Amino acid sequence: MEGEKIEGMSVEEDKFGGVILTVQNPMDSDSFASKLEHSMSLWTQQGKKGIWINLPLQHSNLVHSAVKAGFRYHHAESDYLMLVYWIPHTPDSIPANASHRLGVGAFVVNNKREVLVVQETSGRFGGTGVWKMPTGAVNEGEDICDAVIREVKEETGVETEFVEVLAFRQSHKSFFQKSDLFFVCMLQPQSFDIQSQASEIEATKWMPVEDYAAQPFVQENELFDFIAKICLSKLNDNYTGFSNVPTTTSSGKKTYLYLNNDAIGSHLLASKEQA
Amino acid sequence: MEGEKIEGMSVEEDKFGGVILTVQNPMDSDSFASKLEHSMSLWTQQGKKGIWINLPLQHSNLVHSAVKAGFRYHHAESDYLMLVYWIPHTPDSIPANASHRLGVGAFVVNNKREVLVVQETSGRFGGTGVWKMPTGAVNEGEDICDAVIREVKEETGVETEFVEVLAFRQSHKSFFQKSDLFFVCMLQPQSFDIQSQASEIEATKWMPVEDYAAQPFVQENELFDFIAKICLSKLNDNYTGFSNVPTTTSSGKKTYLYLNNDAIGSHLLASKEQA
Repeated sequence: MEGEKIEGMSVEEDKFGGVILTVQNPMDSDSFASKLEHSMSLWTQQGKKGIWINLPLQHSNLVHSAVKAGFRYHHAESDYLMLVYWIPHTPDSIPANASHRLGVGAFVVNNKREVLVVQETSGRFGGTGVWKMPTGAVNEGEDICDAVIREVKEETGVETEFVEVLAFRQSHKSFFQKSDLFFVCMLQPQSFDIQSQASEIEATKWMPVEDYAAQPFVQENELFDFIAKICLSKLNDNYTGFSNVPTTTSSGKKTYLYLNNDAIGSHLLASKEQA
Repeated sequence: MEGEKIEGMSVEEDKFGGVILTVQNPMDSDSFASKLEHSMSLWTQQGKKGIWINLPLQHSNLVHSAVKAGFRYHHAESDYLMLVYWIPHTPDSIPANASHRLGVGAFVVNNKREVLVVQETSGRFGGTGVWKMPTGAVNEGEDICDAVIREVKEETGVETEFVEVLAFRQSHKSFFQKSDLFFVCMLQPQSFDIQSQASEIEATKWMPVEDYAAQPFVQENELFDFIAKICLSKLNDNYTGFSNVPTTTSSGKKTYLYLNNDAIGSHLLASKEQA
């Protein structure tokens, strides 16, 4: 379907009966307001539903005009603000904004039952002498299994392969109103030399896993203690987490399914490879 | 520490050496710009780090002034925009914005090996005759195990108890640049009468689980087929997912840890209850 053209903006139709407007050229707010008013009346006649305005940071002079036209904020990233308006007189089906950040922690053990640990320079554990597993944030668009390998490499220099998600926890209001999900992952080390270049890391070493679990900060904190118990069970071959099986979604995207693959009689990945 | 007072705004210090400014009263953009300039020079002298401005939607006339003062967007919700500025000449430690939305799907089976399924009125599966598991989005601040019970109740009227996360998949660019995580959960039905009131649901029924898995849309789609295989393994007592164990984080928040609790010799929840 051919979209309407508006000077200084790109106009795309989405597959939900809506329109996405992206401001590309500088313009004054009066000119923007009048173009928007004209287009909105056209889109209303055409039975359009959700109208989106993508306003890059450098066009922040236009935010107020969009809000005066009835738009509300939907989400923002560093360099743009997305606003939305629902035209029909029905409850909107505008998708919710992202609500969670993801974090990962790495349980990396060598064949001497030593676990890879770090001391952080700042934050909650800075200066406490606590040895903890390498942890970090999953980047936008990054797979959990890739993020945890990257964090270990950055913080310790050690190369690893992903084995399993051992456990995860969800917590709320961790940052403003946002929630987070933290995935504890087991990794298999592929190298052993420690070379930390991350400014947030004070020290790194291989530590007997029993010494790790015996630290007071682990034993006195229910969550850390649970996680240590899971890791010890895993080392004793008594635990199965979720492994990552590559698959394809119905819309054709490559994606990972995380599941207890050991529990499936013919493993999913194996049955796929034979197919 | 006593924060500076600014007319028409609240000023709070955060625990990372930063300041959170919230605009409360209407003001013109020139007055806002001059107050901001004054405060910024004070905060720079004081060695403050991240400066946050929370601008409610009704004060959108001030966005442009904040951007001209060097602020960038951090995130936005329907009713406010959060901007941020990092004062020190060092790499910033500003936390990333939320990157993921969460969804849930419910595998609910009665003791006749019938699975609870729905037909949707619209969307990808509207009018296709496909019977699928109830699915939905996790609300902000909601636990996964609560969200899936709520969705089943809304879509089918059936009361359930949470059993396990059977598997999850992560996918990217599902909505603008955002990613999503979808959790397939097993639930135990506590009631059996179907009463759907959700406008997005065309029909609901209990369906023999083998008939569900034999639908062409399930068999022809790798991801749905994998999920059906997991569900069938679970029914045949060959599968263990992650159950939800309540715990407390180091900062004292109640939270759920999801893990293979069956695999831990003395179950974590049991050992906790004895403690």
